[in-house]
Amino acid sequence: MNNIIIKNAAQVVTCSGFEGKRGAEMSNLHVIENGTVIVTDGIISHVLKKGEAIPIDVSGYKEIDATGKALLPGFVDPHTHFVFGGHREEEFSWRMRGDSYMSIMERGGGIVNTTKATREASEEELYNSAKRRLDDMLELGITTVEGKSGYGLDKDTEMKQLRVMRKLNEDHPMDIVSTFMGPHATPAEWKGREDEFIDFNINEMLPLVAKEKLAECADIFCEENVFTIEQSRRFLTAAREHGFLLKLHADEIVQFGGAELAGELKVLSADHLLQASDEGIKAMADNGVVATLLPLTAFSLKEEYARGRDMIDANCIVALATDLNPGSSHTASAPLLFAIACIYMNLSPEEAVTAYTINSAAAVNRADTVGSIDVGKQGDMILLKYPSYKFLPYYVGMNCVETVIKKGLVVKS
Amino acid sequence: MNNIIIKNAAQVVTCSGFEGKRGAEMSNLHVIENGTVIVTDGIISHVLKKGEAIPIDVSGYKEIDATGKALLPGFVDPHTHFVFGGHREEEFSWRMRGDSYMSIMERGGGIVNTTKATREASEEELYNSAKRRLDDMLELGITTVEGKSGYGLDKDTEMKQLRVMRKLNEDHPMDIVSTFMGPHATPAEWKGREDEFIDFNINEMLPLVAKEKLAECADIFCEENVFTIEQSRRFLTAAREHGFLLKLHADEIVQFGGAELAGELKVLSADHLLQASDEGIKAMADNGVVATLLPLTAFSLKEEYARGRDMIDANCIVALATDLNPGSSHTASAPLLFAIACIYMNLSPEEAVTAYTINSAAAVNRADTVGSIDVGKQGDMILLKYPSYKFLPYYVGMNCVETVIKKGLVVKS
Repeated sequence: MNNIIIKNAAQVVTCSGFEGKRGAEMSNLHVIENGTVIVTDGIISHVLKKGEAIPIDVSGYKEIDATGKALLPGFVDPHTHFVFGGHREEEFSWRMRGDSYMSIMERGGGIVNTTKATREASEEELYNSAKRRLDDMLELGITTVEGKSGYGLDKDTEMKQLRVMRKLNEDHPMDIVSTFMGPHATPAEWKGREDEFIDFNINEMLPLVAKEKLAECADIFCEENVFTIEQSRRFLTAAREHGFLLKLHADEIVQFGGAELAGELKVLSADHLLQASDEGIKAMADNGVVATLLPLTAFSLKEEYARGRDMIDANCIVALATDLNPGSSHTASAPLLFAIACIYMNLSPEEAVTAYTINSAAAVNRADTVGSIDVGKQGDMILLKYPSYKFLPYYVGMNCVETVIKKGLVVKS
Repeated sequence: MNNIIIKNAAQVVTCSGFEGKRGAEMSNLHVIENGTVIVTDGIISHVLKKGEAIPIDVSGYKEIDATGKALLPGFVDPHTHFVFGGHREEEFSWRMRGDSYMSIMERGGGIVNTTKATREASEEELYNSAKRRLDDMLELGITTVEGKSGYGLDKDTEMKQLRVMRKLNEDHPMDIVSTFMGPHATPAEWKGREDEFIDFNINEMLPLVAKEKLAECADIFCEENVFTIEQSRRFLTAAREHGFLLKLHADEIVQFGGAELAGELKVLSADHLLQASDEGIKAMADNGVVATLLPLTAFSLKEEYARGRDMIDANCIVALATDLNPGSSHTASAPLLFAIACIYMNLSPEEAVTAYTINSAAAVNRADTVGSIDVGKQGDMILLKYPSYKFLPYYVGMNCVETVIKKGLVVKS
């Protein structure tokens, strides 16, 4: 029985709500001081203020004394590529040495390296390495994660990546939201025939993935020298017809009109957005698109950070994600994410917490079931070692999470 | 019995040596592939290459199979202020909001806040909070740490901080090197009488700390509006007469001649050095001063990083440290330290590892006993989850450490 009572938390940081929060709303975490939360059958059944009587019989419930500790919703990471073969630590060293992107590519580095390793890896190997990453994320308080295909770039490997995610979703405490991202890059065998590669993804892959119910969302890398606005529009429109929710890698490297396209198509989320224009930001705000920012990628690549502050001020729904992948952001550090969001993107600690809980839940269409401590939602919560959520950015890059509770079960303590 | 054999490590990253390494020497980690290390009675007794027969009877030794994992010396953190009262998470939020340093000071923020809390804290409270920080550090692979007084700024509290460190050194697996840093700031009661405060530290504190053998090193904050070059020279010269090893907070905020003074006095280490001049760098190189860089502070304060690359190229002995403290660098993140050193300071992964093992051991006068995997040294080692030290910066901000061995005992696994 997944029954648990967490008593007398210094703060219950509820992040209360059932949809993504915009602009100024992001500052209100709906904190209850000295609160108590009860989970019954895996679902949050009671959120009690100090002094409120416990209204049900909790004998047989697991009990946690949370005195002096803050209780938050489990973190939701809405953008990762956590299933991949191989590692690129050698390439990282080359990059540190100052080697150029092109010279690294010539030696088989970059996404080509990962595609090769992912194609060669057995399903079991992919499963085991991805499982370790989920363990690392759970340790840091992440209880729901999005994962993308897109390192296969052929039918068999894309399906293999998606099957690994489905199996991990069944086996691992982590909830996984799967995204099909066939158009992540154009593989060597399709080079120069990008339109045909998009056709292949539309005509062969989308129907197959939909039929096998292997992904809930579809995503494309819309960027100069990757896929055009028109190719992206075509792919996403087809994906919507097959019932997928839409995501978009937008305006990462150059200002390309990705955020505007995201608004036009009213996609679920547009991600990266380092170069998003003012018009693009307005289009996202006007159309309820979640702006998902990935500052660990910018940190790793020494890029400027996305204009998170401007986006919140423009009334966007801003979410944060790690972008865990083997190249540009080989990290799932939720602690570093909070530090960078606050120190370098000028988000307040409150805005950063909203961005990585209820808003990131909205970015993966889960704001109705996770991302906040509200009656009726899944019992996914984390207990910090410290009495306030303000320690999340303040204990810079350090893991403040002491206990992780998933569907009412303690999965880390 | 602290007897252990670690077999068949993918890499034994020995960092071999008994003194700090300069310049180009920092690139050679003396890696043994598929090596085996034996610790007997807490001391490294054998470092074996692949295929070498085990020359002693190891029945009764604890055995670890390190296949697929890299073995390194435990990290040495040579600059922290880990004993302090209170926390400053509120002030961190104010800073994020853009409040000025002066307005924060006016509300009782800054070092004044910590001095007040440290004076008010009982010895037991200080002990308990510091112990948690040591636990966090050990978890990240740090097995030796330097700690400073300097949040008391009066006789009783300075002695209290130092006694806490002595007791933790006895009780906790971590080895602690204590530093007396009475002249960390001028407390309100001495304001405007800085020379007299230095006299107090020279005439009353140094003899007392020396007599009670409570610290091995002495340190002063040499900086504009803190303590002058002349005050620093006077304090350090007196400290040397009392048998202390010398350290110096130098050239952090303005170019002040701190590095030059460090060279003149041939101190053990000069720390921070963001603004060190070319002459200062040369003076450190010429006089064997360890240049200890604290990039997590620069990261937290959005400052430019110290010129680590230039210092290595100028043949300095460069070390890295976290500067863990409640204000400017509230972090002990060794993983983030590696990431920043490599990505933002252009150190190679090899140089960064040298800087945080044998060179940081040199910065606390421990290069003869820790900081490398050499026969005769303490059995302080860490086993990574991954086969190469290159994962340390590559798994950005993430803890790669699976097992921590201190004096031959497994203290984390």
